[in-house]
Amino acid sequence: MTATSNRVSSQEIVSGFLERIRARDRSVGAWAHLNPELALRAAAAADATEPKSALHGVPIGLKDIIDTADQPTGYGSEAWEGFQPAADAEAVRRLRAAGAVIMGKTTTTEFATYRPTATRNPHNPEHTPGGSSAGSAAAVADGQVPLALGTQTAGSVTRPGSFCGTFTFKPTFGRWPFSGVLPVALTFDTLGGFARDPRDLALLDAVLTKPRARGGPGPCSTRYLAPNALDRTLPPLRELRVGVLHGPWFDLAENAAAYMLSQSADFLGARVASIEQVQTPSQLAELQTAHASVQSLEAGWYLQDMIARDPRKVSDLLKAEIAAAHAANADEQEAWRNALRETAIFAHLALTQYDVLLTLAAPGEAPHSLLSTGDPAFNRLASTAGLPAAGIPVGTGARGLPLGLQIIGPRYGDQALLALVDELTFQHGLATIPDLPASGD
Amino acid sequence: MTATSNRVSSQEIVSGFLERIRARDRSVGAWAHLNPELALRAAAAADATEPKSALHGVPIGLKDIIDTADQPTGYGSEAWEGFQPAADAEAVRRLRAAGAVIMGKTTTTEFATYRPTATRNPHNPEHTPGGSSAGSAAAVADGQVPLALGTQTAGSVTRPGSFCGTFTFKPTFGRWPFSGVLPVALTFDTLGGFARDPRDLALLDAVLTKPRARGGPGPCSTRYLAPNALDRTLPPLRELRVGVLHGPWFDLAENAAAYMLSQSADFLGARVASIEQVQTPSQLAELQTAHASVQSLEAGWYLQDMIARDPRKVSDLLKAEIAAAHAANADEQEAWRNALRETAIFAHLALTQYDVLLTLAAPGEAPHSLLSTGDPAFNRLASTAGLPAAGIPVGTGARGLPLGLQIIGPRYGDQALLALVDELTFQHGLATIPDLPASGD
Repeated sequence: MTATSNRVSSQEIVSGFLERIRARDRSVGAWAHLNPELALRAAAAADATEPKSALHGVPIGLKDIIDTADQPTGYGSEAWEGFQPAADAEAVRRLRAAGAVIMGKTTTTEFATYRPTATRNPHNPEHTPGGSSAGSAAAVADGQVPLALGTQTAGSVTRPGSFCGTFTFKPTFGRWPFSGVLPVALTFDTLGGFARDPRDLALLDAVLTKPRARGGPGPCSTRYLAPNALDRTLPPLRELRVGVLHGPWFDLAENAAAYMLSQSADFLGARVASIEQVQTPSQLAELQTAHASVQSLEAGWYLQDMIARDPRKVSDLLKAEIAAAHAANADEQEAWRNALRETAIFAHLALTQYDVLLTLAAPGEAPHSLLSTGDPAFNRLASTAGLPAAGIPVGTGARGLPLGLQIIGPRYGDQALLALVDELTFQHGLATIPDLPASGD
Repeated sequence: MTATSNRVSSQEIVSGFLERIRARDRSVGAWAHLNPELALRAAAAADATEPKSALHGVPIGLKDIIDTADQPTGYGSEAWEGFQPAADAEAVRRLRAAGAVIMGKTTTTEFATYRPTATRNPHNPEHTPGGSSAGSAAAVADGQVPLALGTQTAGSVTRPGSFCGTFTFKPTFGRWPFSGVLPVALTFDTLGGFARDPRDLALLDAVLTKPRARGGPGPCSTRYLAPNALDRTLPPLRELRVGVLHGPWFDLAENAAAYMLSQSADFLGARVASIEQVQTPSQLAELQTAHASVQSLEAGWYLQDMIARDPRKVSDLLKAEIAAAHAANADEQEAWRNALRETAIFAHLALTQYDVLLTLAAPGEAPHSLLSTGDPAFNRLASTAGLPAAGIPVGTGARGLPLGLQIIGPRYGDQALLALVDELTFQHGLATIPDLPASGD
């Protein structure tokens, strides 16, 4: 690093974002914990060392269920407010080792489940930013930080990203490290990222991907049988076979969202080898209940000790959802597991016929409410099958709020999927990146 | 029913089997609870009514983790010895409604997990009958009852059946009712059956299959996409495509067993359309640890209340296995879940190339030990993928004990798979049904 480098320093970058946060925090409320001095110190340290990765000196927000040794982690729970973990989560360790600057902790619903945060959608404060990764979505959408991490068990990355108008990426299950993150239902839990530029998500993937998770062969075609295959690739755009996925939950789609999906399919249709609607089996109708129920079942186990700290400070809603799932008999539980297995099998078989699946990232615009975080119906398939899913902001709805497209790729096709999003965004102009909200409230 | 019916009465049948039990119980020890008067009363009741099913009046043994309202259920645990459930398991209710006679409760390892029973292999008392459904396998193999129910989480039906030389059937996950049966790991738990005649297993399937589980379309081919398909069929034998599955655990196979499998493949090869060895992906190497660990993880949750009754009476081995699984961090747990997902996907993709998979039911003969129930390595794939699996006794090993073949079919291809076993057994002579052990000890 030369003394006359004309690069912008990390301290300048971090200062700029901190200024934006100061101007907008009262309106958006995306941060659960923010220590500007700590962030600036980390930026200064980054400026003083050789770049360690493409994320060197870049500030990143962390959902407040991701443990940090130098900042409290409250898990969105009154019972854990101010709790100080002893160690960084593995993802945080990797980010720090890559020279990234931990900007602060972003708000989350209670234990990353149901009870909303006070965070508002930056594009309209009367609307939810979505959940559970509310703060990460809102902070990135509002230009308060260029990158943020969230987690997804059902739809907690893709959906809030869609509501707030950011790009999102949920990697292949198990690809990014989850140790040191609050488990809700480890059958589904995965980290994910938010950015206003999809290329940042590819850099994030490069930093976070576990070495072992890189070399896995893709199980989504007969090529699966080849030993020691590398990361899956996708064919070039003009050779791509695209399946448009509606699913039995498509009646939840708002008109504007359904129209945006059909317009996007036409847009892609002119550029790819083939595009057609995927036939979905009748059992997919059971996915929503099955996924929600297994999530609550596992939450009852994984959150047991978290709840036990002070059950009176845990919402009745969460306790009721857990109790309902645990009251189910063995046959009901097995029917849920069967629906999940059928969904995963369907998705992987569909990905032998199509290279990627195109669907909505959310039913439509962010609901006009701060009491609900919206419906993850369009996100449970990728969460259940462990497939990588990218969210792309495309167009707006009746109230002028962002709509989102979702592209689901084959397992281990993570980088290829992000490269496709990059190409569609910057060479073909598919995305509609919302303007940053004005600085005043 | 005419007064001059020349059918054998249920009372005569039950009496005959009770006589065999009396003669052999001291040598085999297959029963955890037996009340001859109760069984004879049920037989008399069956004789007094019109036949309700093909199992009317037929005695059946129940693994002692299947609740019975009129007989204690001890779950193989010292802590629960003599426990009297308030209600019948749903499977028991269905059996009684079909006119079957509940003969008694058969021994099981502790909570259907590790600690062996005192039950001996009827063909050689120094050898294990296998586990966890030890008593059901031994009782059927010894001619003490014509049919018995067991449960399988890893390999607890197919393996003891192989060790004892019976036919077995583990249905598609979720097909037979599990309510009222002790859950160990509901992601995998399924009932299964033992018989000396495979046709009895088809009758059992007809009685136990939940109405809803019948109509499910098979997800194992492109036909999966057809809505409202009925039970899957298989092509006629001469058109059947058979995949021979070794898997990375094949080095556990004893020489005689590996030879039997290759001889069986040759035998089938002369009768089917095609037979070839299935290429298996490298990740299958992780299945054994992954399945065993997720089983222990879930056992820690599902058995929590069972263990809490009197933890001092629960084996250290079980407690240690549970503790080890629960000590794993999120990334280890997610790697297990990923290996299970990969296995299920592999198995279902393989079943789009092949109609059935042929493999061993166990590594070889029953181990010469009463301290171990043998290795379920060959059974975890079908348990993980939720696929129906039939066990067929074929040949003997170096010590003269039975060996077993396993045929894995497509989901919802249960009746078709049992019809195939029937055809191979009675038209082609594939099976080697062991002689009944002599009556003296």
